[in-house]
This record gives sequence, structure tokens and C-alpha cells, in this order.
Amino acid sequence: MPKPNRPLPLGTPAGVEVLTKILTQGPIPRVQIARRTGLSQAAVTKAVAPLIDAGFVTDHPAVTEETVPGRSELGIGRPVSPLTVVADSVSVIGLKVTPTDLIGVTTDFKAGIRAVRHRQLPDTSVGTVLERLADLASELIGTLEDKTDPAGPLVGIGVAVSGDVDAGHGYVRDSPFMGWRNVPVAELLGEKLDVPVVVSNDVRALTVAEHWFGVGVDADSFAVVTIGSGVGCGLYVNGEVVQGAHGVSGELGHLPLAPGNLVCTCGRRGCVETVASSDAILARIRETTGQPELDLSGAIQLAHRGDAHAREAFDRAGEVIGSALAAMVNLVGPELVVIAGEGVADYDLYDQRMRQTFAEHAFGAAGDCRLMLRSHTFDDWARGAAATVIRSYVRGESPFKR
Amino acid sequence: MPKPNRPLPLGTPAGVEVLTKILTQGPIPRVQIARRTGLSQAAVTKAVAPLIDAGFVTDHPAVTEETVPGRSELGIGRPVSPLTVVADSVSVIGLKVTPTDLIGVTTDFKAGIRAVRHRQLPDTSVGTVLERLADLASELIGTLEDKTDPAGPLVGIGVAVSGDVDAGHGYVRDSPFMGWRNVPVAELLGEKLDVPVVVSNDVRALTVAEHWFGVGVDADSFAVVTIGSGVGCGLYVNGEVVQGAHGVSGELGHLPLAPGNLVCTCGRRGCVETVASSDAILARIRETTGQPELDLSGAIQLAHRGDAHAREAFDRAGEVIGSALAAMVNLVGPELVVIAGEGVADYDLYDQRMRQTFAEHAFGAAGDCRLMLRSHTFDDWARGAAATVIRSYVRGESPFKR
Repeated sequence: MPKPNRPLPLGTPAGVEVLTKILTQGPIPRVQIARRTGLSQAAVTKAVAPLIDAGFVTDHPAVTEETVPGRSELGIGRPVSPLTVVADSVSVIGLKVTPTDLIGVTTDFKAGIRAVRHRQLPDTSVGTVLERLADLASELIGTLEDKTDPAGPLVGIGVAVSGDVDAGHGYVRDSPFMGWRNVPVAELLGEKLDVPVVVSNDVRALTVAEHWFGVGVDADSFAVVTIGSGVGCGLYVNGEVVQGAHGVSGELGHLPLAPGNLVCTCGRRGCVETVASSDAILARIRETTGQPELDLSGAIQLAHRGDAHAREAFDRAGEVIGSALAAMVNLVGPELVVIAGEGVADYDLYDQRMRQTFAEHAFGAAGDCRLMLRSHTFDDWARGAAATVIRSYVRGESPFKR
Repeated sequence: MPKPNRPLPLGTPAGVEVLTKILTQGPIPRVQIARRTGLSQAAVTKAVAPLIDAGFVTDHPAVTEETVPGRSELGIGRPVSPLTVVADSVSVIGLKVTPTDLIGVTTDFKAGIRAVRHRQLPDTSVGTVLERLADLASELIGTLEDKTDPAGPLVGIGVAVSGDVDAGHGYVRDSPFMGWRNVPVAELLGEKLDVPVVVSNDVRALTVAEHWFGVGVDADSFAVVTIGSGVGCGLYVNGEVVQGAHGVSGELGHLPLAPGNLVCTCGRRGCVETVASSDAILARIRETTGQPELDLSGAIQLAHRGDAHAREAFDRAGEVIGSALAAMVNLVGPELVVIAGEGVADYDLYDQRMRQTFAEHAFGAAGDCRLMLRSHTFDDWARGAAATVIRSYVRGESPFKR
């Protein structure tokens, strides 16, 4: 297999559409791509040829006819030539930033994770974090050069940060968790590493990964709800992840559904996170049990042992999360809600109350959406950052403008 | 001008896209259609030719070069042939159903209102309403036959009803205001009139009208919020009106943001409408002033005269509407929020409190969306129903499947 050059040979919107179908739904025969895109078979063949020549796509995969999805639609005996993406034709790095840790992965072109590295942060200052991010990225670049397991050339680095992120310009406008305002992450990291950098809101990045490489392949609309140190939400509606006109959307943790006397880390009153974030739950249990030294795992243990104060804090959280889910579903009406996040260890503690409150407030058929629990690790968040790079690279969006 | 046959000569998705651009953005030169759709000029010309032949579109409008929008982009001296839709090539009827009145309009192909008729309802039983709807539609069909002002042939009737409407199958699943459950409106009315019928949620219909013929022509994303006997919301995001996977979306009036002791007409607790609907405001003022005979206009007068009890009810409403707007904007992040509805007479009574609460809870840049007040009459709601017909007709959706 020849190593491709990094630029994708995609001259037209049709080419982007065809590669996207192969990437997200492959192995897929040309005839099915034509059917699903509305393009002619000739147009599909024309778009695919340069991708095959350059080694991004192949029609000789190690796939037998029996394993081709939708094979039966095509009629028996007709030759099929399913197309797949050459996974190791390019490599991507995804980095997730949290206040205490950096998590980094390398992935192939299909967002398959190849290597994982974690790094602790001594503080959240921009200087420290950017320096450690560059170090972590350099270490991950090193893993790509392993001669025993050759990877494709690196095309870009994705960085996922919580908060208000201007993805178009690659900077973090406001990240309360990090204490950052107006940090030009793409520029700062790009200077250090000489690689294109894509910066995204972390929940949005996870939603992109689900859209391209996860549940979104089969769902017309979905929401990814993350519950943990923050409460967030990514929305996929009308064929695209909802970005927000000003870069803000899916702020489920900041719906004003909690009591107005509670002040959020964002400074506003009554936000969902004042009751439902893991910090808020812990603070409540410390207060009601009179155990100021308790940590989160201790609080979870206490609740699992049936302590009434601890249970009450999780009940309160479940109730407000259930209301928030209902509010989101009543407004947007997704087909599927994926509940993801760090807080899976304590999920059983609020699950029942959450579902009950959701059922009480979901309006009519909006409540018929599927609720699916899906455990996500921090590596998945980093993979989300990698998925944003793959998407921008294929679409030719900044910093990959063609 | 030859009268066109009713079927649109649209064989391809490109044809639909081209006609949509002409309809919503015309007069528009072919070169600009090509630019905005990504199609080749040849493809635009090919799609347009049969539409001109059949009399739906013309390139000889009474338009001088100076009045063509975007003329300056095209370079001086180049010939332009802006295309416009022939407004009277078809007619459409739009009907809005309320518990007390039916409002009907006829419109041309551009959703321009030609005739308006109102009719009172003695009750909300399905039989009565359908009979009166058919009468009203027949009367409107009569206006189309006026020889002094010839209208295009009628292609369809749109019906807008509040509540949970299955637009795909043309029936009302649940309309609390009407007291209807599972009413096959399209079938029942279609039988009486022998004309294709499109049934929609009323707020969704208003949003379609704004998308195709209103603010949506210039906004990448917007919300239409209606305030009156109900509180509703239509969302336009990622190039399309949000339908909801199960036909429910935009239920701003049923976000659980009001006190939990208040029971909504829908049976749920704490819905926005328990405080913010005109009925809820009136009930509150009757109770706090001890005037059980007060009507809404009396209550508005009282508040305008500064009565503290009356003001308090409007303040409460403004507060919960402001919270609901913030919740919606934090989740969806539209560029523009159009506040519309019957309640414009009393808008000044809750406007300030609404904006204040919105500002308190809008998250970061999400709060930068424009809030625009736009007075809507019941005729506009009926026009929304007409717009849903025009959209389905152009797109070849049920009941216009090609």
C-alpha cells in the first residue's frame, strides 16, 4: 500500500459526501453509496478513483461477500466491490483537557484508538497546560514512528475543552472549569508543534464521534448527555451536530431548573449543575452528613450503604437531571438520548429518580425517545477530539481548507 | 400566461433545490442560484427550463436591473436574467383552528395572502369543527373563481392545529386546547373536499412560513416563540425546521420551569403555561384581586393602570417566559429569536421582566442572539398553514408524492 500524500484528493462536495459514506458506513458497495447519496453511479466511481489511487480508500478489503452489510438488497450473484477506508492511511491525535489531567490518544482514519497516554497537571494556568499538551502530543507523535506497527502520517491534532469554545477560530472563549478566558489554543499549540490544530467543546467533540463513528450512523437525531463534574449535552439534528450561532449550544447543565438560591460555578443562579454536578452532590453530602472530609468515592459508598443523607443528594440530582432531560426532549425531540459520562459509578444512585422525573415532564410522544446508558472513559473524550480532526480534514474545513 | 398543470415538473433533488431558491430568494439570476446551491450553471438552466415552460417560473419579470438583490456582485454590464416564481400559477388555502374560531386564507405561490375569512365555532367537537372547516374552505375556493381577479388552480389545503400533530400521516394525535385525540383531519377533510390536505402543528407551520417567506431567508438559525393562550416554539436549525423524531418539538410551554404545585392543562406539573398562558395570567389576577368576573382585556387594563396584583401576575409570567427562552437558547443557540403571538397587546407588561430573567440565565455567547418582537395576527397563523402546503408541494412530500 503506498503512503498517501496528506492532502485529500477531494475536488467537489460530492467527493466529500462519498468519502464520508465510506468512512462512516463502509464497507459499502458503490451502488449503495449512489443510492444513499442520490448521486449517479458514474459520479460515485469518479469521486472514488483518486481516493483509491492515493491510498485512502480500497476496494480489495479482506471482506467476504457474506459479511457485506445490505448484501441481500443487491441481488444474488451480482458482483459487489465494497469500499473501505484504509485505516492507517492517516493518523490523528486527540487530546482532552481537564483541570487535573490531560488525556491523549492516537487514532487511525476510522477513529480507532492506537495509543493512549495520560499526564497529570500541576495547575491550570494557560502556560503550564499548553506546555504539557505539547509534551504529551510529542510523546504521542513518537508512538506513530514505531517501526514494528507503522501508522499513517499525522494530519492534525484535536483538543477538547469544556466550556464556550470558538471552534472556527480555534480558541477557548470561556472555560469556567479551567479558569480560562480567550485562550487561542490552536495558535499556541500549532506554533509549538507545526501541525494543524482543531479546538472543540468537549461534549461537542464526543457528539461528533458518535455522529461519525457511533450511534449517529443509525439514528436520524440524537442527544449525548454527559453527567459528571459538569452536565453537558451534544445535539445532532437535521443532519448535523448543532453548533449554536455563537458557538454555544447543549448547555444542559445551565438550564435554570434548580432552586434559585443556589449559585453555579458559572456565576448564574439555579443552574442544573448546582445540584447535579459531582462536586455539588459531594458538597451536599458533606454538609448534610456533617463530614467535611468526605471525598466523592466515600460519598458514593455512603449512598450505596443506604445513608439517607447521601441518598437524598443523589435523589435531588436525579430529579433535576430528569427535568433537564425532559426540557431538552420537549424542545428538540431526538430519537435517541445517550447518557454518557464519568459518573457511571454512581449511575444507579440517580437513575430511577431521573427516569421518573423525566417521565413526569416529557411531553406526549417526545417521551418515546430511547434513553441509552453508555459508559464513556476519558479516552473516549480524547477520541472525540480526534474525530473532530477527521471531520474537518475530510470536509476541508479550517485548518484544512482546500 | 398559460395556466400550468398542477403537477410540478421536478424530476430531481436539484430541481427542488432550484425552485426553492427562486421561491424564497427570487428574483434571482441563474448564476446566483448556481453559486448558492453548488450546482453548475448548466444544471440550473436544465432544472429551470421545464418550470418556465409550465408557467411556474418566469425570467421576464417586471424588474429592472437596479432592483435585483446582489446585482453589484455580478459585475457591471453583464446581462442578468433574474428568475421569479409566477405568483398566480397556483393557489393554496391555509386554515388555522382555534377552540373558538376558524381563520382561513387563500394565498398565491409565494404565500401572499389574497383573501381572508373568519368563522366562529359553537363547540370543539370533531364533527362540528370538520364541517365548519369544509364550509370555510368551500367559501375560500369560491373566492378563487372570481373572474375579475383570476387566481391559479388550488393545489392543496393546509390545516394548523395546536398540540401533538403527526404531519406525516395528517392527523392530530393530541390537542389539549381542542380536546382532540387521534383525529385523522387530512382524511376527513380530504373526503369532504377532494383536495390534498396537509395538517401541521400551528407553531411549526408559522416557523415554516418564517423559514420560506420570512426571517429565515436571512438567518442561519432561528426560533419562533409564540405567547398567548399557549406558549410554543418553532426551531429552525441546520437547514431545516426541527420536527422531532416522534413529531413533538419546540414545546416551550411545557418545560418544567414553574412551581411544581401548579397543574397544567396537559396534566403535568410545573409547565411554563401554568404561569404564562393568558388563561393562567387571567386566573391569577381574578384570584389575587378577588374579581372572578374579570376578562383578559379587563385584566390587561388593570395592569396598565398599575394595579399591583395584576402587575404581579404579568411579572410572574415574564419571569418564567424569560427562563424558558434562556433554556431554549442555552440548548439550541439560535441566531435570532422571533417573539410572536396573540399576546402582543400585553407584551409591554412582561417584556422587561422577561428580558431581565433571560439575561440572568442565558449562558455565555448564547445570550448574544437577537430577540425580535413581531406581531402576528391569526391570519398569519393561517398563512403558516398555507406555507406548509407550498413546501410539501414543492418537495413532493405526502400528499404530493411524485
